[in-house]
Amino acid sequence: MNHIESLFEKLNADNAPGQEKRQNKNDIEIKGESLEGIFVDFSHGDVDAHQPLPESIDYFNEGFSEIGSSQAYTEYRGLSEILTETAEKLSAFTGTNINPEEELIITPGTQGALFLAVGATVTRGDKVAVAEPDYFANRKLVHFFQGELYPVHLDYLNHNEKAGLDLSALEAAFKDGVSTFLFSNPNNPAGVIYSSEEIDRIISLSNQYDVTLIVDQLYSRQLFDQRSYTHAISHPDADREKIITITGPSKTESLSGFRLGTAFGSPVIINRMEQLQAIVSLRASGYNQRVLKSWFSEPDGWMDERILKHQEIRDDILTLFREAGITVRTTEAGSYVFPKFDVLSVDCITFSKILRKQANVVVTPGTEFGPEFTDSIRLNFSQDHQNAVDAVKRIITVAGYYQNEP
Amino acid sequence: MNHIESLFEKLNADNAPGQEKRQNKNDIEIKGESLEGIFVDFSHGDVDAHQPLPESIDYFNEGFSEIGSSQAYTEYRGLSEILTETAEKLSAFTGTNINPEEELIITPGTQGALFLAVGATVTRGDKVAVAEPDYFANRKLVHFFQGELYPVHLDYLNHNEKAGLDLSALEAAFKDGVSTFLFSNPNNPAGVIYSSEEIDRIISLSNQYDVTLIVDQLYSRQLFDQRSYTHAISHPDADREKIITITGPSKTESLSGFRLGTAFGSPVIINRMEQLQAIVSLRASGYNQRVLKSWFSEPDGWMDERILKHQEIRDDILTLFREAGITVRTTEAGSYVFPKFDVLSVDCITFSKILRKQANVVVTPGTEFGPEFTDSIRLNFSQDHQNAVDAVKRIITVAGYYQNEP
Repeated sequence: MNHIESLFEKLNADNAPGQEKRQNKNDIEIKGESLEGIFVDFSHGDVDAHQPLPESIDYFNEGFSEIGSSQAYTEYRGLSEILTETAEKLSAFTGTNINPEEELIITPGTQGALFLAVGATVTRGDKVAVAEPDYFANRKLVHFFQGELYPVHLDYLNHNEKAGLDLSALEAAFKDGVSTFLFSNPNNPAGVIYSSEEIDRIISLSNQYDVTLIVDQLYSRQLFDQRSYTHAISHPDADREKIITITGPSKTESLSGFRLGTAFGSPVIINRMEQLQAIVSLRASGYNQRVLKSWFSEPDGWMDERILKHQEIRDDILTLFREAGITVRTTEAGSYVFPKFDVLSVDCITFSKILRKQANVVVTPGTEFGPEFTDSIRLNFSQDHQNAVDAVKRIITVAGYYQNEP
Repeated sequence: MNHIESLFEKLNADNAPGQEKRQNKNDIEIKGESLEGIFVDFSHGDVDAHQPLPESIDYFNEGFSEIGSSQAYTEYRGLSEILTETAEKLSAFTGTNINPEEELIITPGTQGALFLAVGATVTRGDKVAVAEPDYFANRKLVHFFQGELYPVHLDYLNHNEKAGLDLSALEAAFKDGVSTFLFSNPNNPAGVIYSSEEIDRIISLSNQYDVTLIVDQLYSRQLFDQRSYTHAISHPDADREKIITITGPSKTESLSGFRLGTAFGSPVIINRMEQLQAIVSLRASGYNQRVLKSWFSEPDGWMDERILKHQEIRDDILTLFREAGITVRTTEAGSYVFPKFDVLSVDCITFSKILRKQANVVVTPGTEFGPEFTDSIRLNFSQDHQNAVDAVKRIITVAGYYQNEP
């Protein structure tokens, strides 16, 4: 295998969320009966069930029809007017002060922001800490930029009032020369929030060991049960030159089809991200950028209602899993549950293929979030409520067909 | 300077087209008078002067309102339905047969396609040939992927019926171990078409030396003076495993604000490009993908009319430059002219800043297309006809203020 083949071996996206249609599942042998039911794709949210704000498409059309050329061809980091408005909103949200000219970039989705942030901080041989489990692309990004991976365990199952990051392991990694720590908060896939004490310690360690923080806060607006959330960037000890925050309207706001993300923080890193964006995709789609005008400008009550509806779906799903004896931590924020099936006789990749064939349900295998999560699957429960409940019942039934002998 | 600083030094986009607003031009000293006139930004086309098809926005709105979730979340390489239609159109256009499932990917603009194609073929230490002059990002992409650059001179000024690539130098580079050759046809910035004999030789050399070809054909629909065009992929000797063609609707069709590109060819490379896209931006914006339905489906006569209008602007601009004694080759395809100012007393970067300050005109410095083009500037003449003519007159007047002493 040559260089490029082994590189792409590590990037393999065959089991990544959204790619299920391209999988071959002819080789899967079924036990028990096939279950009828409305198809549910838990690999991502359903923007038909939870629709974007109607204003979003109006802003797009305004960009196309009224603004025209200057909206089609923006500076690589985004149109100045949109940057200014978005910086104000993000400053208010995070409790900090973001300079729109120097500290903010608009990207093609938060995936685009993650790619640029890692590309702007990591080169060959650099040591990078990532939480495990965490978003499937994080480890791949480190491989792609030829960094050295330092996985740090997140003990999400055995805690309640904190995410459960192994802070001693984090310090050991930092001590060993890690220069960047990349993590999602709320965590994807576990749906847990880092406590203020955890953020405090992460900030303090990053200062002590001169580590850049890349914090993916994609789901930080969707908090359940009146939980509190700590923005790392607004921590009094945060070094603004050493922190990049990433967020966007693709999830709670259902604007994923527009591919919009933002990153803010260190001007040096944001500037590099723009240089990189110039050769990666030039800019986030011009007309699409205008849709950010609807973000953080939702009508009163809209966000509360959206969160409440998701909390209700979450509650029903958690109850079903727990009644069936399947281990799952309560989602504190975001739309993911990450149940652990202790007695499954097949690995999670096979189980996911079985679920697609036998239960008309798509889920994402746990191993996308870390190699050790062979007995877990991730579900995005931003779905039609009843369809989601029915689909989870089918998952539980099928899991029953594939139990280890006691 | 550490690794990442020196890497980003080479990616510097401060003088790249579209970034002029972020430049500091306070340090520019002016000779002669400032010229009044309507602002023209020759760094890109004006989609207000040459508008997209009205149907394009209808397809977007259909994606958002009627198709919904399945259009928002497509497979990384694009929605199957759109891939199928687009493969048919591109097959007819290029005279070949493109398998929509295996040989085609939709990307965020052709920039996205270029990035993925180079990323899928070049790793550290690989030798890559690029034409000079050529598109500004090509050399940066090679630097970014840590390839070794082999520039091959394109003698565009001294030929008429061919582009003027130095085929002996190309063979020497191939002999020296080049594994990828990346070039635009029609050439950006020179606006010239590779002759069928040149394509013939490039194909033959690539077969002989086992070199992958990445051909950026972004402007291949906009041919002037009934010129003929040779698609490398449909050459009878082309090795389908060794060639990637890139194109999209951002230029002639004025759909740049949607960020849509396509790449087609080698299934192995297209597959890698999809794996890479999964960590770069996930996919081209979902709703935007639907706009490809309008591409190659323009009403009868629409494309002829568009080309004719551009040919008329080109003719007036060429006449003005030539009357002023400025060397410029006739644009054979696309919307670029690349005039050479033989007696300018300032370099092209300074001259570009002067033009912005003194003539209310944005142009792109020649050095963006190769380090030796210090006395050339690139203009995209897809502008309002009269405004473009007036702006070129201002450029010529200002050039007169900055002549070398004879």
